[in-house]
Amino acid sequence: MTVMGTARPAGRPRSERAEKAIVDATLDLIGEGTSVSELSIEAVAARAGVGKTTIYRRWANKEELVGDALATLKAPLPVVEGRTVREDLVAYLDVMRQDSLTLRTRCIMNIAMSEPDRHPNLYERFHKTAIEPRRVAMRAVLGRGVASGELRPDLDIELAIGMLSGTMLWYTKGAAHNNTPLADDLAARIVDEALRGFLSR
Amino acid sequence: MTVMGTARPAGRPRSERAEKAIVDATLDLIGEGTSVSELSIEAVAARAGVGKTTIYRRWANKEELVGDALATLKAPLPVVEGRTVREDLVAYLDVMRQDSLTLRTRCIMNIAMSEPDRHPNLYERFHKTAIEPRRVAMRAVLGRGVASGELRPDLDIELAIGMLSGTMLWYTKGAAHNNTPLADDLAARIVDEALRGFLSR
Repeated sequence: MTVMGTARPAGRPRSERAEKAIVDATLDLIGEGTSVSELSIEAVAARAGVGKTTIYRRWANKEELVGDALATLKAPLPVVEGRTVREDLVAYLDVMRQDSLTLRTRCIMNIAMSEPDRHPNLYERFHKTAIEPRRVAMRAVLGRGVASGELRPDLDIELAIGMLSGTMLWYTKGAAHNNTPLADDLAARIVDEALRGFLSR
Repeated sequence: MTVMGTARPAGRPRSERAEKAIVDATLDLIGEGTSVSELSIEAVAARAGVGKTTIYRRWANKEELVGDALATLKAPLPVVEGRTVREDLVAYLDVMRQDSLTLRTRCIMNIAMSEPDRHPNLYERFHKTAIEPRRVAMRAVLGRGVASGELRPDLDIELAIGMLSGTMLWYTKGAAHNNTPLADDLAARIVDEALRGFLSR
């Protein structure tokens, strides 16, 4: 169904549909084993059923496209209630656990991230759109905890982010290799252990 | 120089030299961008200047060979003095930091680890020869700390290993993507922050 001209089409506008088709095509090709070096804009355009100019209108190059496509695999951060630092941190860390549960996502991320030195712009883009917002959110929660006196005034917030996120990363990587499920309460257990040291006394 | 029969050759025995040539050839091919799926025993044999049977005498298949070759990239664990839990943990974590400093090592690990679902035996082998001994060593230090009363009696030792190693992993991964050097005292800072929660009071 194509509606043009006078009426706005039901559902998504056409440019948004095209963008989704391009992102899906990119992820599908990588998920099928195409490395970022091998991936071509031609192949993405053909798979998405769009012209190359439609892609170049939105993305300057392949690395920006792949970076943005990967970012769509990351679940959006939950809106946190801001009740206690503990609750907010558990909510954020649990998003990382949930991201790791999908085999396709793990597969695509592994292939796309296997040549970091060859595609620095891809990592910069992905970092900016997917990783940095999560750090900003976690930094805000920890900063609020220090300001309210819940957390130690001398807490190194960047190290605290690394400790919380890194521990979850350790478990999700191990689970990816062993195909073992992650316990539902893993985020809470990590946060509770970390807070023993972070809390004011 | 080949010495056979009566006298033992100076330097390494021939089988050990062949083994080193095979491992080096494997790592070189991967470092040049050959994925594990593409890598063939024929190519390794040609590069190492040995026959295929020499390889098969030592490794049953490609995955075992690659797993063992990757394990050689991990520095041996230091002998720890066993004075304080803190000193021993810092020594172990600093090995992880040092591993990450070599661009070639990071590159090879990234390529080899990009298809975990296709090569489960490789991961099992690598885990058994390179990762598990480190966990065993860290588990022993933490267990000794709990037994001596330095650490909390209710410490979850597996979670503590994940927290220490995962935080270092977080930094080494970030450094790999950003090409930022890791501070010399990073291991000590991670251990000191973690011990705030781990220590008995």
